[in-house]
Amino acid sequence: MKVMIDLCVVPIGVGVSVSKYIAECQKIFQEAGLKTSLHAYGTNIEGEWDEVFAAVKRCHEVVHEMGAPRITTTIKAGTRVDREQSMEDKVQSVQEKLS
Amino acid sequence: MKVMIDLCVVPIGVGVSVSKYIAECQKIFQEAGLKTSLHAYGTNIEGEWDEVFAAVKRCHEVVHEMGAPRITTTIKAGTRVDREQSMEDKVQSVQEKLS
Amino acid sequence: MKVMIDLCVVPIGVGVSVSKYIAECQKIFQEAGLKTSLHAYGTNIEGEWDEVFAAVKRCHEVVHEMGAPRITTTIKAGTRVDREQSMEDKVQSVQEKLS
Amino acid sequence: MKVMIDLCVVPIGVGVSVSKYIAECQKIFQEAGLKTSLHAYGTNIEGEWDEVFAAVKRCHEVVHEMGAPRITTTIKAGTRVDREQSMEDKVQSVQEKLS
Repeated sequence: MKVMIDLCVVPIGVGVSVSKYIAECQKIFQEAGLKTSLHAYGTNIEGEWDEVFAAVKRCHEVVHEMGAPRITTTIKAGTRVDREQSMEDKVQSVQEKLS
Repeated sequence: MKVMIDLCVVPIGVGVSVSKYIAECQKIFQEAGLKTSLHAYGTNIEGEWDEVFAAVKRCHEVVHEMGAPRITTTIKAGTRVDREQSMEDKVQSVQEKLS
Repeated sequence: MKVMIDLCVVPIGVGVSVSKYIAECQKIFQEAGLKTSLHAYGTNIEGEWDEVFAAVKRCHEVVHEMGAPRITTTIKAGTRVDREQSMEDKVQSVQEKLS
Repeated sequence: MKVMIDLCVVPIGVGVSVSKYIAECQKIFQEAGLKTSLHAYGTNIEGEWDEVFAAVKRCHEVVHEMGAPRITTTIKAGTRVDREQSMEDKVQSVQEKLS
């Protein structure tokens, strides 16, 4: 089952600057060979369900190993069985209706 | 790794009434032996990471099998390594400060 | 326009214990006369759109005044124009299908 | 108070294709003069709290007027009082740590 997620990992108890933790998560997705797109409030990730969620779990493990005692993460997860649709398809579908 | 999640599964393309799909998801959590608490905009679930997310995946599979062509799900996932904290602990901790 | 929201306010940069901030938010909802239900990963709030979102803004103001330099909040917001549905209706609708 | 949000509006009861509703929401943000960035699972929006949330409310009103009987929306909202940080700053901060 293919899934597209939007992921926002928030380390708690390590101060206000969290970008170094997010950068480590990006490396996890790259090493897993997952297709991603970083935006200002999270990361879009596309792939097989098990691979995507294994990477999410790895993010929690690594961010804890980096010293964060607590993490709260927000995930939106979309699946569809009627047709395939990539991240680019979704953005393009909206942009076509705007032009 | 223990995790507490808040899960909100939204089937798309099956009309406005979604409670029968949510009820099936509740059965999945019960069969998995997971501790849950249903509220008006989702379900709190507590357990081992792999068991909790296996149940989330099963929800997507079952809701698709029930006829939903598309699903969008929102998950909040919290982990902490400094101490154990149950769903009841979290609610009680706020209520103590209110009384 | 009536709205039901699920709100999760997360102060960042104030350590791992956040319950005192959440307790202050609960007081804001009470003072605003809003119907609420606290759960382990947020609070369900029901009311008129403008009143509900004024209370959410007030939470951010108060949590910053309490010393949090940064806040990240997750909100789910549901509206429907086909019929009225309270928080209790939503939970009951699922529970009926389970029994 | 400045806020950065990530917004995902999901019309329910209008079938599986929702891009035309999202396109109308984009027009609302443009007309409001808000800075936005569309991604595959939502839209980043930056601006003054009241203007941003007035636009979110307008989205619900317009999507209902377009025929959607029910809407469920997910919002992440971030505020900070320690310093200013734009959408570009947030992405750049992560990318610097990756290079």
